[in-house]
Amino acid sequence: MNIFIVHAHPEPASFNAALTERAREVLVPAGHALAVSDLYAMSFNPVYGRHNYTTVKDASYFKPQQEEQYASEVDGFAPDIQAEIEKLEWCDVLILQFPLWWFGLPAILKGWVDRVFVMGRVYGGGRWYDRGVFHGKRAMLSLTTGGPDSIYSTDGLNGDIGIILYPINHGILRFTGFDVLPPFIAWSAAHVEGAGRRRYLRAYEDRLNTLATTPPIAYPGLADYDPATYRLKPA
Amino acid sequence: MNIFIVHAHPEPASFNAALTERAREVLVPAGHALAVSDLYAMSFNPVYGRHNYTTVKDASYFKPQQEEQYASEVDGFAPDIQAEIEKLEWCDVLILQFPLWWFGLPAILKGWVDRVFVMGRVYGGGRWYDRGVFHGKRAMLSLTTGGPDSIYSTDGLNGDIGIILYPINHGILRFTGFDVLPPFIAWSAAHVEGAGRRRYLRAYEDRLNTLATTPPIAYPGLADYDPATYRLKPA
Repeated sequence: MNIFIVHAHPEPASFNAALTERAREVLVPAGHALAVSDLYAMSFNPVYGRHNYTTVKDASYFKPQQEEQYASEVDGFAPDIQAEIEKLEWCDVLILQFPLWWFGLPAILKGWVDRVFVMGRVYGGGRWYDRGVFHGKRAMLSLTTGGPDSIYSTDGLNGDIGIILYPINHGILRFTGFDVLPPFIAWSAAHVEGAGRRRYLRAYEDRLNTLATTPPIAYPGLADYDPATYRLKPA
Repeated sequence: MNIFIVHAHPEPASFNAALTERAREVLVPAGHALAVSDLYAMSFNPVYGRHNYTTVKDASYFKPQQEEQYASEVDGFAPDIQAEIEKLEWCDVLILQFPLWWFGLPAILKGWVDRVFVMGRVYGGGRWYDRGVFHGKRAMLSLTTGGPDSIYSTDGLNGDIGIILYPINHGILRFTGFDVLPPFIAWSAAHVEGAGRRRYLRAYEDRLNTLATTPPIAYPGLADYDPATYRLKPA
Protein backbone atom coordinates (compact mmCIF):
# COMPACT_ATOMS: atom_id res chain seq x y z
CA MET A 1 0.00 0.00 0.00
CA ASN A 2 0.95 3.65 -0.36
CA ILE A 3 0.99 5.22 3.08
CA PHE A 4 1.15 8.96 3.76
CA ILE A 5 2.00 10.22 7.24
CA VAL A 6 1.54 13.91 8.02
CA HIS A 7 3.66 14.61 11.08
CA ALA A 8 3.27 17.70 13.27
CA HIS A 9 5.59 18.14 16.25
CA PRO A 10 8.25 20.83 16.76
CA GLU A 11 10.71 18.57 18.67
CA PRO A 12 12.62 16.09 16.46
CA ALA A 13 13.24 13.82 19.47
CA SER A 14 9.60 13.85 20.65
CA PHE A 15 7.56 10.73 21.30
CA ASN A 16 5.49 11.71 18.27
CA ALA A 17 8.71 11.48 16.26
CA ALA A 18 9.41 8.05 17.77
CA LEU A 19 5.97 6.89 16.62
CA THR A 20 6.57 8.11 13.07
CA GLU A 21 10.03 6.52 13.08
CA ARG A 22 8.51 3.25 14.26
CA ALA A 23 6.01 3.47 11.41
CA ARG A 24 8.90 3.76 8.97
CA GLU A 25 10.64 0.75 10.54
CA VAL A 26 7.48 -1.35 10.30
CA LEU A 27 5.95 -0.28 7.01
CA VAL A 28 8.91 -0.04 4.64
CA PRO A 29 10.34 -3.56 5.29
CA ALA A 30 6.78 -4.88 4.90
CA GLY A 31 6.84 -3.66 1.30
CA HIS A 32 4.70 -0.55 1.62
CA ALA A 33 5.62 2.76 0.00
CA LEU A 34 5.84 5.58 2.54
CA ALA A 35 5.62 9.36 2.19
CA VAL A 36 6.06 11.57 5.24
CA SER A 37 5.26 15.29 5.37
CA ASP A 38 7.09 16.50 8.47
CA LEU A 39 5.38 19.88 8.66
CA TYR A 40 7.82 21.54 11.09
CA ALA A 41 10.83 20.25 9.17
CA MET A 42 9.24 21.57 5.95
CA SER A 43 8.51 24.95 7.57
CA PHE A 44 4.99 24.45 6.26
CA ASN A 45 3.00 27.69 6.27
CA PRO A 46 -0.43 27.00 7.81
CA VAL A 47 -1.94 30.41 7.04
CA TYR A 48 -4.65 30.27 4.38
CA GLY A 49 -4.35 33.02 1.78
CA ARG A 50 -3.93 33.97 -1.87
CA HIS A 51 -0.46 32.44 -1.77
CA ASN A 52 -2.27 29.08 -1.97
CA TYR A 53 -2.77 29.67 -5.68
CA THR A 54 -0.86 30.85 -8.72
CA THR A 55 -4.20 31.96 -10.16
CA VAL A 56 -6.71 34.67 -9.28
CA LYS A 57 -10.41 34.32 -9.99
CA ASP A 58 -11.55 37.55 -8.32
CA ALA A 59 -8.89 40.08 -7.35
CA SER A 60 -11.39 42.43 -5.70
CA TYR A 61 -12.89 40.04 -3.15
CA PHE A 62 -11.18 37.01 -1.67
CA LYS A 63 -13.66 34.14 -1.46
CA PRO A 64 -11.66 31.03 -0.52
CA GLN A 65 -13.86 28.30 -2.02
CA GLN A 66 -14.30 30.21 -5.26
CA GLU A 67 -10.53 30.54 -5.67
CA GLU A 68 -10.08 26.84 -4.82
CA GLN A 69 -12.65 25.82 -7.41
CA TYR A 70 -10.99 27.96 -10.06
CA ALA A 71 -7.49 26.75 -9.20
CA SER A 72 -8.80 23.17 -9.44
CA GLU A 73 -10.10 23.87 -12.95
CA VAL A 74 -6.93 25.55 -14.30
CA ASP A 75 -4.30 23.69 -12.26
CA GLY A 76 -3.47 26.82 -10.32
CA PHE A 77 -2.16 25.61 -6.98
CA ALA A 78 1.07 26.88 -5.50
CA PRO A 79 3.82 24.23 -5.45
CA ASP A 80 3.55 23.52 -1.70
CA ILE A 81 -0.18 22.85 -1.97
CA GLN A 82 0.09 20.93 -5.25
CA ALA A 83 2.69 18.59 -3.70
CA GLU A 84 0.45 17.79 -0.73
CA ILE A 85 -2.63 17.21 -2.90
CA GLU A 86 -0.63 14.76 -5.00
CA LYS A 87 0.44 12.83 -1.91
CA LEU A 88 -3.21 12.64 -0.79
CA GLU A 89 -4.24 11.34 -4.21
CA TRP A 90 -1.34 8.87 -4.26
CA CYS A 91 -1.93 7.30 -0.86
CA ASP A 92 -4.08 4.35 0.11
CA VAL A 93 -3.79 5.17 3.81
CA LEU A 94 -3.41 8.60 5.44
CA ILE A 95 -2.10 8.90 9.01
CA LEU A 96 -2.11 12.18 10.92
CA GLN A 97 0.52 12.09 13.70
CA PHE A 98 0.21 14.87 16.26
CA PRO A 99 0.04 15.89 19.92
CA LEU A 100 -3.51 16.88 20.93
CA TRP A 101 -3.17 20.61 21.57
CA TRP A 102 -6.17 22.37 23.06
CA PHE A 103 -8.41 19.46 22.16
CA GLY A 104 -7.57 19.67 18.47
CA LEU A 105 -4.93 19.66 15.77
CA PRO A 106 -1.82 21.80 16.26
CA ALA A 107 -2.25 24.91 14.09
CA ILE A 108 0.43 23.81 11.61
CA LEU A 109 -1.64 20.67 10.91
CA LYS A 110 -5.02 22.41 10.95
CA GLY A 111 -3.61 24.82 8.36
CA TRP A 112 -2.38 21.91 6.26
CA VAL A 113 -6.03 20.78 6.12
CA ASP A 114 -7.36 24.31 5.56
CA ARG A 115 -5.03 24.87 2.60
CA VAL A 116 -4.76 21.40 1.03
CA PHE A 117 -8.33 20.06 1.23
CA VAL A 118 -9.58 22.24 -1.61
CA MET A 119 -13.03 22.55 -3.10
CA GLY A 120 -12.96 21.16 -6.62
CA ARG A 121 -10.09 18.74 -6.46
CA VAL A 122 -10.72 17.25 -2.98
CA TYR A 123 -14.47 17.74 -2.49
CA GLY A 124 -17.53 19.44 -3.97
CA GLY A 125 -20.24 18.78 -6.51
CA GLY A 126 -21.89 16.07 -4.42
CA ARG A 127 -18.60 14.28 -3.74
CA TRP A 128 -18.55 14.04 0.06
CA TYR A 129 -18.86 11.49 2.85
CA ASP A 130 -19.38 8.00 1.39
CA ARG A 131 -19.40 9.51 -2.11
CA GLY A 132 -16.25 11.46 -1.34
CA VAL A 133 -13.22 11.86 -3.62
CA PHE A 134 -11.12 9.64 -1.34
CA HIS A 135 -13.68 6.83 -1.21
CA GLY A 136 -11.83 3.53 -0.81
CA LYS A 137 -8.89 5.06 1.04
CA ARG A 138 -8.38 4.67 4.79
CA ALA A 139 -7.28 7.23 7.37
CA MET A 140 -6.24 7.11 11.02
CA LEU A 141 -5.35 9.64 13.68
CA SER A 142 -2.29 8.81 15.79
CA LEU A 143 -2.01 11.19 18.69
CA THR A 144 -0.52 11.81 22.10
CA THR A 145 -2.41 13.43 24.97
CA GLY A 146 -1.40 15.21 28.15
CA GLY A 147 -4.00 13.45 30.31
CA PRO A 148 -4.90 9.83 31.06
CA ASP A 149 -7.71 7.94 29.36
CA SER A 150 -10.05 8.28 32.36
CA ILE A 151 -10.24 12.06 32.00
CA TYR A 152 -11.27 11.58 28.34
CA SER A 153 -13.94 8.96 29.04
CA THR A 154 -17.67 9.47 28.45
CA ASP A 155 -18.10 10.79 31.99
CA GLY A 156 -14.59 12.28 32.21
CA LEU A 157 -13.74 15.88 33.04
CA ASN A 158 -12.23 16.64 29.62
CA GLY A 159 -15.09 14.97 27.74
CA ASP A 160 -15.34 11.86 25.57
CA ILE A 161 -12.33 11.56 23.27
CA GLY A 162 -14.68 10.27 20.55
CA ILE A 163 -16.58 13.56 20.66
CA ILE A 164 -13.41 15.63 20.87
CA LEU A 165 -12.03 13.93 17.75
CA TYR A 166 -15.37 13.86 15.90
CA PRO A 167 -14.81 17.17 14.07
CA ILE A 168 -11.55 15.72 12.69
CA ASN A 169 -12.59 12.10 12.08
CA HIS A 170 -16.02 12.88 10.66
CA GLY A 171 -15.69 16.50 9.57
CA ILE A 172 -12.35 16.28 7.76
CA LEU A 173 -11.56 12.63 7.01
CA ARG A 174 -15.02 11.10 6.48
CA PHE A 175 -16.23 14.29 4.76
CA THR A 176 -13.65 13.72 2.02
CA GLY A 177 -14.49 10.01 1.69
CA PHE A 178 -11.96 8.20 3.84
CA ASP A 179 -12.88 5.13 5.85
CA VAL A 180 -11.76 6.32 9.29
CA LEU A 181 -10.07 3.82 11.58
CA PRO A 182 -10.31 4.15 15.36
CA PRO A 183 -7.54 6.48 16.57
CA PHE A 184 -4.28 5.26 18.05
CA ILE A 185 -3.82 7.20 21.29
CA ALA A 186 -0.74 7.34 23.50
CA TRP A 187 -2.27 8.68 26.71
CA SER A 188 -0.26 11.00 28.98
CA ALA A 189 2.72 10.71 26.66
CA ALA A 190 4.63 13.46 28.43
CA HIS A 191 4.37 11.60 31.72
CA VAL A 192 5.17 8.09 30.44
CA GLU A 193 8.79 6.93 30.28
CA GLY A 194 10.79 3.81 29.37
CA ALA A 195 8.64 0.70 29.58
CA GLY A 196 5.40 2.63 29.10
CA ARG A 197 6.66 4.16 25.88
CA ARG A 198 7.92 0.80 24.63
CA ARG A 199 4.46 -0.65 25.23
CA TYR A 200 2.89 2.17 23.22
CA LEU A 201 5.37 1.64 20.38
CA ARG A 202 4.56 -2.08 20.27
CA ALA A 203 0.83 -1.34 20.37
CA TYR A 204 1.32 1.10 17.48
CA GLU A 205 3.12 -1.64 15.52
CA ASP A 206 0.01 -3.79 15.87
CA ARG A 207 -2.13 -0.97 14.50
CA LEU A 208 0.27 -0.41 11.60
CA ASN A 209 0.24 -4.10 10.74
CA THR A 210 -3.56 -4.14 10.61
CA LEU A 211 -4.22 -0.92 8.69
CA ALA A 212 -5.85 -2.85 5.85
CA THR A 213 -8.10 -4.99 8.05
CA THR A 214 -9.13 -2.90 11.07
CA PRO A 215 -12.88 -2.17 10.83
CA PRO A 216 -13.50 1.55 10.34
CA ILE A 217 -15.72 3.70 12.54
CA ALA A 218 -19.36 3.22 11.44
CA TYR A 219 -21.10 6.37 10.22
CA PRO A 220 -24.49 6.64 8.50
CA GLY A 221 -24.30 6.95 4.71
CA LEU A 222 -25.65 9.72 2.50
CA ALA A 223 -28.58 7.48 1.55
CA ASP A 224 -29.71 7.60 5.18
CA TYR A 225 -30.33 11.37 4.97
CA ASP A 226 -33.18 13.34 3.44
CA PRO A 227 -31.52 15.11 0.48
CA ALA A 228 -33.62 18.26 1.02
CA THR A 229 -32.86 18.82 4.70
CA TYR A 230 -29.71 16.70 5.23
CA ARG A 231 -31.39 15.22 8.29
CA LEU A 232 -31.66 11.50 8.99
CA LYS A 233 -34.71 9.90 7.40
CA PRO A 234 -37.21 8.41 9.87
CA ALA A 235 -36.19 4.85 10.72
CA MET B 1 -16.96 46.15 30.31
CA ASN B 2 -13.65 45.45 28.59
CA ILE B 3 -14.36 43.42 25.46
CA PHE B 4 -11.72 41.61 23.42
CA ILE B 5 -12.54 40.36 19.92
CA VAL B 6 -10.11 38.03 18.17
CA HIS B 7 -10.94 38.23 14.49
CA ALA B 8 -9.77 35.68 11.91
CA HIS B 9 -10.74 36.17 8.26
CA PRO B 10 -8.42 36.91 5.33
CA GLU B 11 -10.90 39.15 3.43
CA PRO B 12 -11.31 42.66 4.91
CA ALA B 13 -14.77 42.99 3.28
CA SER B 14 -16.02 39.59 4.50
CA PHE B 15 -19.24 39.08 6.42
CA ASN B 16 -17.08 38.17 9.39
CA ALA B 17 -15.57 41.66 9.10
CA ALA B 18 -19.06 43.16 8.96
CA LEU B 19 -19.92 41.36 12.19
CA THR B 20 -16.80 42.69 13.95
CA GLU B 21 -17.49 46.17 12.58
CA ARG B 22 -21.04 45.97 13.88
CA ALA B 23 -19.68 44.97 17.28
CA ARG B 24 -17.56 48.12 17.28
CA GLU B 25 -20.59 50.25 16.34
CA VAL B 26 -22.67 48.74 19.13
CA LEU B 27 -20.19 48.33 21.97
CA VAL B 28 -18.14 51.54 21.89
CA PRO B 29 -21.08 53.99 21.99
CA ALA B 30 -22.54 51.88 24.82
CA GLY B 31 -19.48 52.79 26.89
CA HIS B 32 -17.52 49.55 26.67
CA ALA B 33 -13.79 49.45 26.02
CA LEU B 34 -12.94 47.37 22.95
CA ALA B 35 -9.74 45.64 21.83
CA VAL B 36 -9.63 43.82 18.50
CA SER B 37 -6.87 41.46 17.42
CA ASP B 38 -7.35 41.17 13.65
CA LEU B 39 -5.02 38.21 13.18
CA TYR B 40 -4.67 38.48 9.39
CA ALA B 41 -4.10 42.24 9.55
CA MET B 42 -1.47 41.63 12.26
CA SER B 43 0.20 38.88 10.18
CA PHE B 44 -0.05 36.80 13.34
CA ASN B 45 2.21 33.75 13.18
CA PRO B 46 0.20 30.70 14.31
CA VAL B 47 3.13 28.26 14.39
CA TYR B 48 4.07 27.19 17.90
CA GLY B 49 7.82 27.23 18.53
CA ARG B 50 10.74 28.56 20.53
CA HIS B 51 10.05 31.99 19.09
CA ASN B 52 7.16 32.13 21.60
CA TYR B 53 9.66 32.93 24.33
CA THR B 54 12.66 35.13 24.95
CA THR B 55 13.82 32.52 27.47
CA VAL B 56 15.07 28.93 27.19
CA LYS B 57 14.57 26.40 29.95
CA ASP B 58 16.01 23.38 28.11
CA ALA B 59 17.95 24.00 24.92
CA SER B 60 18.48 20.30 24.23
CA TYR B 61 14.84 19.16 24.20
CA PHE B 62 11.84 21.32 23.34
CA LYS B 63 9.01 20.52 25.72
CA PRO B 64 6.31 23.14 25.14
CA GLN B 65 4.60 23.20 28.55
CA GLN B 66 7.92 23.26 30.41
CA GLU B 67 9.04 26.30 28.41
CA GLU B 68 5.66 27.98 29.01
CA GLN B 69 5.89 27.38 32.73
CA TYR B 70 9.41 28.80 32.84
CA ALA B 71 8.52 31.81 30.69
CA SER B 72 5.58 32.46 33.02
CA GLU B 73 7.93 32.49 36.01
CA VAL B 74 10.57 34.78 34.52
CA ASP B 75 8.36 36.96 32.28
CA GLY B 76 9.90 35.45 29.18
CA PHE B 77 7.23 35.72 26.49
CA ALA B 78 7.94 37.18 23.07
CA PRO B 79 6.26 40.56 22.53
CA ASP B 80 3.51 39.20 20.26
CA ILE B 81 2.49 36.60 22.86
CA GLN B 82 2.87 38.97 25.81
CA ALA B 83 0.54 41.48 24.14
CA GLU B 84 -2.18 38.88 23.57
CA ILE B 85 -1.92 37.50 27.13
CA GLU B 86 -2.34 41.04 28.47
CA LYS B 87 -5.50 41.54 26.39
CA LEU B 88 -6.90 38.27 27.74
CA GLU B 89 -6.16 39.35 31.29
CA TRP B 90 -7.64 42.80 30.65
CA CYS B 91 -10.93 41.70 29.15
CA ASP B 92 -14.21 40.91 30.85
CA VAL B 93 -15.62 39.33 27.69
CA LEU B 94 -13.73 37.46 24.95
CA ILE B 95 -15.31 36.97 21.51
CA LEU B 96 -13.76 34.74 18.85
CA GLN B 97 -14.98 35.81 15.37
CA PHE B 98 -14.26 33.31 12.60
CA PRO B 99 -15.57 31.28 9.68
CA LEU B 100 -15.95 27.60 10.59
CA TRP B 101 -13.26 25.95 8.46
CA TRP B 102 -13.17 22.17 8.43
CA PHE B 103 -15.40 22.03 11.49
CA GLY B 104 -12.98 24.04 13.57
CA LEU B 105 -11.00 27.23 14.02
CA PRO B 106 -9.02 28.59 11.05
CA ALA B 107 -5.36 27.69 11.63
CA ILE B 108 -4.39 31.31 12.32
CA LEU B 109 -6.86 31.35 15.24
CA LYS B 110 -6.05 27.83 16.47
CA GLY B 111 -2.41 28.88 16.57
CA TRP B 112 -3.33 32.01 18.53
CA VAL B 113 -4.76 29.65 21.16
CA ASP B 114 -1.83 27.21 20.95
CA ARG B 115 0.70 30.00 21.52
CA VAL B 116 -1.14 32.39 23.87
CA PHE B 117 -2.94 30.03 26.29
CA VAL B 118 0.23 29.17 28.20
CA MET B 119 0.74 26.86 31.14
CA GLY B 120 1.66 28.92 34.15
CA ARG B 121 0.11 32.24 33.35
CA VAL B 122 -3.17 31.03 31.79
CA TYR B 123 -3.72 27.60 33.39
CA GLY B 124 -2.00 24.97 35.52
CA GLY B 125 -1.55 24.08 39.17
CA GLY B 126 -5.18 23.16 39.66
CA ARG B 127 -6.46 26.33 38.00
CA TRP B 128 -8.82 25.00 35.34
CA TYR B 129 -12.52 24.77 34.52
CA ASP B 130 -14.58 26.48 37.24
CA ARG B 131 -11.38 27.16 39.19
CA GLY B 132 -9.71 28.53 36.05
CA VAL B 133 -7.60 31.68 35.80
CA PHE B 134 -10.32 33.45 33.83
CA HIS B 135 -13.09 32.61 36.30
CA GLY B 136 -15.65 35.40 36.26
CA LYS B 137 -14.99 36.38 32.64
CA ARG B 138 -17.34 35.48 29.80
CA ALA B 139 -16.59 34.20 26.30
CA MET B 140 -18.59 33.66 23.12
CA LEU B 141 -17.92 32.19 19.71
CA SER B 142 -19.28 34.19 16.76
CA LEU B 143 -18.99 32.21 13.57
CA THR B 144 -20.18 31.79 10.03
CA THR B 145 -20.83 28.42 8.40
CA GLY B 146 -21.06 27.19 4.83
CA GLY B 147 -24.14 25.04 5.45
CA PRO B 148 -27.64 25.65 6.85
CA ASP B 149 -28.64 24.89 10.43
CA SER B 150 -30.49 21.69 9.47
CA ILE B 151 -27.25 19.99 8.34
CA TYR B 152 -25.73 20.82 11.75
CA SER B 153 -28.69 19.57 13.80
CA THR B 154 -28.56 16.57 16.15
CA ASP B 155 -29.60 14.24 13.33
CA GLY B 156 -27.94 16.29 10.58
CA LEU B 157 -25.38 15.05 8.08
CA ASN B 158 -22.56 17.27 9.39
CA GLY B 159 -23.32 16.47 13.03
CA ASP B 160 -24.61 18.50 15.96
CA ILE B 161 -23.03 21.96 16.04
CA GLY B 162 -22.92 21.71 19.84
CA ILE B 163 -20.66 18.67 19.56
CA ILE B 164 -18.58 20.22 16.78
CA LEU B 165 -17.93 23.31 18.92
CA TYR B 166 -17.49 21.37 22.17
CA PRO B 167 -13.68 21.09 21.88
CA ILE B 168 -13.52 24.90 21.59
CA ASN B 169 -16.25 25.91 24.04
CA HIS B 170 -15.39 23.36 26.71
CA GLY B 171 -11.79 22.43 25.90
CA ILE B 172 -10.38 25.93 25.37
CA LEU B 173 -12.75 28.49 26.90
CA ARG B 174 -14.27 26.61 29.84
CA PHE B 175 -10.92 24.90 30.53
CA THR B 176 -9.38 28.29 31.26
CA GLY B 177 -12.31 29.39 33.43
CA PHE B 178 -14.58 31.42 31.15
CA ASP B 179 -18.34 31.25 31.42
CA VAL B 180 -19.17 30.25 27.85
CA LEU B 181 -22.19 31.84 26.20
CA PRO B 182 -24.13 30.00 23.48
CA PRO B 183 -22.49 30.72 20.13
CA PHE B 184 -23.76 33.29 17.66
CA ILE B 185 -23.97 31.53 14.30
CA ALA B 186 -24.61 33.06 10.89
CA TRP B 187 -25.62 29.96 8.95
CA SER B 188 -24.73 29.66 5.25
CA ALA B 189 -23.15 33.10 5.35
CA ALA B 190 -21.62 32.70 1.88
CA HIS B 191 -25.06 32.04 0.41
CA VAL B 192 -27.02 34.74 2.24
CA GLU B 193 -27.26 38.22 0.74
CA GLY B 194 -28.88 41.58 1.46
CA ALA B 195 -31.86 41.18 3.78
CA GLY B 196 -30.59 37.91 5.22
CA ARG B 197 -27.30 39.50 6.21
CA ARG B 198 -29.06 42.51 7.72
CA ARG B 199 -31.14 40.13 9.82
CA TYR B 200 -28.00 38.40 11.07
CA LEU B 201 -26.37 41.74 11.91
CA ARG B 202 -29.44 42.80 13.91
CA ALA B 203 -29.53 39.44 15.70
CA TYR B 204 -25.85 39.88 16.54
CA GLU B 205 -26.62 43.33 18.00
CA ASP B 206 -29.07 41.66 20.36
CA ARG B 207 -26.39 39.20 21.46
CA LEU B 208 -23.86 42.02 21.96
CA ASN B 209 -26.35 43.99 24.04
CA THR B 210 -26.95 41.01 26.33
CA LEU B 211 -23.37 39.79 26.82
CA ALA B 212 -23.57 40.45 30.56
CA THR B 213 -26.93 38.76 31.07
CA THR B 214 -27.15 35.79 28.68
CA PRO B 215 -27.05 32.54 30.69
CA PRO B 216 -23.90 30.58 29.94
CA ILE B 217 -23.79 26.97 28.79
CA ALA B 218 -24.16 24.69 31.83
CA TYR B 219 -21.23 22.35 32.47
CA PRO B 220 -20.59 20.18 35.54
CA GLY B 221 -18.14 21.69 38.02
CA LEU B 222 -14.87 20.24 39.31
CA ALA B 223 -16.62 19.25 42.55
CA ASP B 224 -18.80 16.88 40.51
CA TYR B 225 -15.75 14.77 39.55
CA ASP B 226 -13.77 12.21 41.51
CA PRO B 227 -10.37 13.92 41.98
CA ALA B 228 -8.51 10.60 41.56
CA THR B 229 -10.03 9.51 38.26
CA TYR B 230 -11.50 12.77 36.90
CA ARG B 231 -14.75 10.88 36.25
CA LEU B 232 -18.17 12.06 37.36
CA LYS B 233 -19.06 10.95 40.86
CA PRO B 234 -22.09 8.63 41.07
CA ALA B 235 -25.27 10.71 41.30
